[in-house]
Amino acid sequence: MEFADRLVDAQKQKRTLLVLGVDPQLDRPGAPGIPADTTLTRFCCEIIEACAEFVVAIKPQLAFFEARGIAGMAAFVEVVRFARSRGLLTIADGKRGDIGSTSAAYAEAFVGGGDFACDAVTVNPYMGSDALAPFIARVRNGRGVFVLVKTSNPSSGEFQDLTAGGRPVWESVAARVAGWGSDFIGSSGLSSVGAVIGATYPDQAVRARELMPAAIVLAPGFGAQGASAEEAVASARADGLGVIVNASRSLMYASRVEGENFIAAARRAAAAMRDELNLALAARIRH
Amino acid sequence: MEFADRLVDAQKQKRTLLVLGVDPQLDRPGAPGIPADTTLTRFCCEIIEACAEFVVAIKPQLAFFEARGIAGMAAFVEVVRFARSRGLLTIADGKRGDIGSTSAAYAEAFVGGGDFACDAVTVNPYMGSDALAPFIARVRNGRGVFVLVKTSNPSSGEFQDLTAGGRPVWESVAARVAGWGSDFIGSSGLSSVGAVIGATYPDQAVRARELMPAAIVLAPGFGAQGASAEEAVASARADGLGVIVNASRSLMYASRVEGENFIAAARRAAAAMRDELNLALAARIRH
Repeated sequence: MEFADRLVDAQKQKRTLLVLGVDPQLDRPGAPGIPADTTLTRFCCEIIEACAEFVVAIKPQLAFFEARGIAGMAAFVEVVRFARSRGLLTIADGKRGDIGSTSAAYAEAFVGGGDFACDAVTVNPYMGSDALAPFIARVRNGRGVFVLVKTSNPSSGEFQDLTAGGRPVWESVAARVAGWGSDFIGSSGLSSVGAVIGATYPDQAVRARELMPAAIVLAPGFGAQGASAEEAVASARADGLGVIVNASRSLMYASRVEGENFIAAARRAAAAMRDELNLALAARIRH
Repeated sequence: MEFADRLVDAQKQKRTLLVLGVDPQLDRPGAPGIPADTTLTRFCCEIIEACAEFVVAIKPQLAFFEARGIAGMAAFVEVVRFARSRGLLTIADGKRGDIGSTSAAYAEAFVGGGDFACDAVTVNPYMGSDALAPFIARVRNGRGVFVLVKTSNPSSGEFQDLTAGGRPVWESVAARVAGWGSDFIGSSGLSSVGAVIGATYPDQAVRARELMPAAIVLAPGFGAQGASAEEAVASARADGLGVIVNASRSLMYASRVEGENFIAAARRAAAAMRDELNLALAARIRH
């Protein structure tokens, strides 16, 4: 089954477009409400368990596991396994991309048969089509790809917004994403070749939807990075589909005071975010 | 000591600009001359031992280790440790880059204190300055960074060559690399913020040198990807410094027939490549 269809099914069944970004920061545990003896795996799995009802997928960030070396990568394996046992889709956030033969190895690692394999992976387009082809080839095996188009960070415009041929570079990437994805549109009408568009850039998200009518937009930047629910769903299609919204730190570190239970705090935050996003989406569709 | 100065010292002392790309492909062992029972770690370390005299650094490609999961990453740790025991510098080829807080974790992983830490790391500029700042901050700790500017692959021009503001996007990246690196120029006159320029694009390499007078250029694409020694050294400065040249498959898989010793074949290939590059460099400087 196509990744896009699996995602849409889960989204409809659970009535949520929220994704849990599993980003265990380096200076935690030690945050308010998280017992100091909580292991990395335990911490991530408790958060996943708490949020599972309210999210369609998890998006573990490789960087935070790699920073912890072999033990971190072993935790990554456990975290992905646990999320799957809870029926969640998994998106490896690695932003990989390299020459073809190397990207083929990355694809094997993150959307293939390796220890670290997930249902989808984020990739970086700077090196062009041949760097992304090995990832896109995995779509035939039911996997998904999210290509960085317009990222959520403050300096994303430095190269992405350079005007070339009358449009910003990111629009050229978006147009290519639509092309790469056109062969992989599922019964949901959405493609398994998606795009990352920061929720912090809602105007660009609207424009991106015009360029990529079938792409699933993964929108980071909601919550800790400052985007509102309205901004986060800016790329939604008229049918209400086509966007999933990631929140990481605002779920992982929802507990703000000592003694507050971090699991209960994450659960409350996830429920509130789900509702907030559903309301924003409903309002957007009505207009 | 600055990374750039360590690299230049090693280059002068050993009279070589060759870098061994440690890229254990997924379909090997099984290549001619490599015994089927050769473990991943053993294979990589034998190649490193064979080439150590002729190379200034190793550049292990993360993808090929990640594709093998936890065992692969454990091998990565062993390989880096072994290369250091042979006095070689290490460049983690990961092409990482993400929002600031995430790039900080990647920097910890690959040029910090983690299991996977090397002397330098390759990074991807698509997300802009704030995505690279955490890596560049590590230069103060003697680490190096190589920013993708113009990559060696066939489709590298798809976005890198888009013309914006009268010049290709990669030139805008090159200009920024010069800026980022200007605070980190060592006694060698070279900066620890370097650039990746494919040896397959020698004209661009010459232009890149004008834009980045102090950058160390890491040139992949020599050997298996088709660039000649003359093309590989195109970005050298008049003083003969400023370029290191990577070869991966042509060293790792130098043995072409069954029964040929892969270690001896790698050693012969490395010696020949070192000499070829030194001749090409000498010819370039004379002109």
